[in-house]
Amino acid sequence: MVAPLKVGIAGLGTVGAEVVRLIETQARVLAGRSGRGIRVVAVTARSKVKKRGVDLRGIEWARDPMALATHPGIDCFVELMGGAGDPALSAVDAALNAGKSVVTANKALLAKHGLKLAKAAEKHGGALNYEAAVGAAIPVIKTLREGLAGTGINRVYGILNGTCNYILTRMEQEGLSFAECLKDAQRLGYAEANPSFDVDGHDTAQKLAILASLAFGTKVAQSAVYVEGISSIAPEDLRAADDLGYRLKLLGVAVRTAKGIEQRVHPTMVPKSSSIAQVMGVTNAVTVDGEGIPPITLVGPGAGGAATASAVVADIADVARGIRANPFGRPISHLRDTRKAPMERHEGGYYIRLLARDFPGTAAAIATRLAEQKISIESIVQRHPNGGAAPTDGKAVPVPVILITYATHEDAVRRALAAVQKDKVISGRPQVIRIEKN
Amino acid sequence: MVAPLKVGIAGLGTVGAEVVRLIETQARVLAGRSGRGIRVVAVTARSKVKKRGVDLRGIEWARDPMALATHPGIDCFVELMGGAGDPALSAVDAALNAGKSVVTANKALLAKHGLKLAKAAEKHGGALNYEAAVGAAIPVIKTLREGLAGTGINRVYGILNGTCNYILTRMEQEGLSFAECLKDAQRLGYAEANPSFDVDGHDTAQKLAILASLAFGTKVAQSAVYVEGISSIAPEDLRAADDLGYRLKLLGVAVRTAKGIEQRVHPTMVPKSSSIAQVMGVTNAVTVDGEGIPPITLVGPGAGGAATASAVVADIADVARGIRANPFGRPISHLRDTRKAPMERHEGGYYIRLLARDFPGTAAAIATRLAEQKISIESIVQRHPNGGAAPTDGKAVPVPVILITYATHEDAVRRALAAVQKDKVISGRPQVIRIEKN
Repeated sequence: MVAPLKVGIAGLGTVGAEVVRLIETQARVLAGRSGRGIRVVAVTARSKVKKRGVDLRGIEWARDPMALATHPGIDCFVELMGGAGDPALSAVDAALNAGKSVVTANKALLAKHGLKLAKAAEKHGGALNYEAAVGAAIPVIKTLREGLAGTGINRVYGILNGTCNYILTRMEQEGLSFAECLKDAQRLGYAEANPSFDVDGHDTAQKLAILASLAFGTKVAQSAVYVEGISSIAPEDLRAADDLGYRLKLLGVAVRTAKGIEQRVHPTMVPKSSSIAQVMGVTNAVTVDGEGIPPITLVGPGAGGAATASAVVADIADVARGIRANPFGRPISHLRDTRKAPMERHEGGYYIRLLARDFPGTAAAIATRLAEQKISIESIVQRHPNGGAAPTDGKAVPVPVILITYATHEDAVRRALAAVQKDKVISGRPQVIRIEKN
Repeated sequence: MVAPLKVGIAGLGTVGAEVVRLIETQARVLAGRSGRGIRVVAVTARSKVKKRGVDLRGIEWARDPMALATHPGIDCFVELMGGAGDPALSAVDAALNAGKSVVTANKALLAKHGLKLAKAAEKHGGALNYEAAVGAAIPVIKTLREGLAGTGINRVYGILNGTCNYILTRMEQEGLSFAECLKDAQRLGYAEANPSFDVDGHDTAQKLAILASLAFGTKVAQSAVYVEGISSIAPEDLRAADDLGYRLKLLGVAVRTAKGIEQRVHPTMVPKSSSIAQVMGVTNAVTVDGEGIPPITLVGPGAGGAATASAVVADIADVARGIRANPFGRPISHLRDTRKAPMERHEGGYYIRLLARDFPGTAAAIATRLAEQKISIESIVQRHPNGGAAPTDGKAVPVPVILITYATHEDAVRRALAAVQKDKVISGRPQVIRIEKN
């Protein structure tokens, strides 16, 4: 009989406490699946006295994360403190350098220091598992790292932030503004008091950087990700998307192009018929396009204590079973540098919403500017706010114009719209949203 | 440097040829991911001379599957011949008893002889991997066997047969009959000349039996699955489903109940808002309900040469990496006997479509019979075929009545409908379709 795997857990919030509980209540199943027992032998957290609803008797309390990480009595260090800096970074690094395996749910740590940590894991032979860091219980890391081991990947994209998807879903379904939905999300605990990390796309960017590395064998680099958030999205964009057969989602997209690996986070029009378009509320989803095979989409909870703990415990079980995957799927020496594919060379379709000053010939002026940049228009809709009747007071009322382009280049779109603005035929700034085809 | 994994492949149809091709073209990535090379050293198939579009030079041709399975020069036997009987059964059994690992895409073999084969694998220390047997490239086996290792599972269900989903999708979208859609499916190569295995639900039942074992730790047993196919489904059922907020899918459902593990395959009404309801055409999907966490749904191609080969190669890579999962997730000694939960004790909502003879009081008579069995009606719709006008020729025209019940027992529904038939207030047999809530 193999000795049980001895686990130390740093961080006993909702996730940490649930991990302790699962390891205890699922002991027999876990031992059966892993071929050996799993035992929590030591823990540490900021408060020793906080009520957590789990029985910690018989478990050693370590002085601090660093002491736990290098504790000679543990085989596997579970980091659930969060944050890209210390104490998480030093503790995980120390554990790996001490030859221990590490399980973490910390996307920021992986996105910022993943390469350094993977090197330490590879050098000392420990596992570095982080299924919970992206999509919580959705087995997306395992799918990319193991399940598609022999399949070339062309694109991976997904809804990686539940807060943003909740806001966009409510805006779509109830016609509310971004600000109203954000307030509700904060009231319900789906968004932080400072929501920027979520709604400006940075959370999605960290997760995307991890997925891109796994999919394409590039060195994980959050700085290679182009990021736009959802705060500029208006209810009329969601209405227009619906009319045009699209849904609007904040996507993280990593795609192999002739110019390198594009990594980008931005509001995106996706065809209503796509799997990703069906994903509503706080739910997350990831789609993987493998070479020669139809897309595979994984849908599920992207956050929450139980869902995150489920992934952490599965990662611990893999350590117990002796599985040592390369942290990013390939040996460090195989990982390539990530060149940031310039966004201005992005190719794709565009949704453009303009507020045209209602002069005769405005539509013609806009169409001319687009044609100058060789942009072909798939559809153009101009809607008089008063339902099509001519203004009765003699004044020109701005008229929303919505354009869908065929595939073109981002810089062409930018140049055309700059020219349109110079022509002074529109009010305000144009809204530009990229289209992602399935 | 570890020696390469030496692979023997029996069966060189579309899948087998694609596996050979992938192992060659993805050699570097596979070696990086697995920590060692993977080499096809011997193959066998019915015809040695058939053109397959892959280079087999330098690969030994084994006399027959049995010779390949026990070939001293191979570490891993890949069975892609199909069929629950010989030669697949004997060859896989022989390979496992010779201490080799086995990778197979053969659902019938697993559903019928999985337990025996898992015992051989456990005894001799080889892996028995079969990701491709259910949902092809969708990583559902890995998710249940490893990804949710620490999570209790309450229910697993899915669309496991692309042929049936293709037929139901076309019936729904185009209002066609089952027979017309089946003919098209056959013409397109989605259905066999003898379609019974697919449309009568047996293919789904074999896959479900495998998923149930992984989810619940029961001994795999196809005979424990209750099976109904889709041939009785009429276009009016799909129209009614749409009206009532449902979609109609052939589901395989395995669920933990107070009476044991229920395993059933039948046409099912699923809420339009569920992830599974969005799955159209030949696409497959599996949803897993873990304890305390929202559902996880995996969607993707359930068949096809490239998709199947992708899963086979990932399984081979796992063997190369030295991963030895218990074939059904737990040691054989932990697997429990499968008691077939009796279908008459199934609890759930029901859709019932009757053709009522248009006598005054028919609806009341039906409602009375349901009430006698304590069945509560959620909705009842009676539609005169001529749009509600009274018949002008004085003759009673049968009127479709559609009932949705609240959760009740299957035997209560059966008794109530038997009584209704005895009352001679309906024409023909009632259509009964179970409702699965998400």
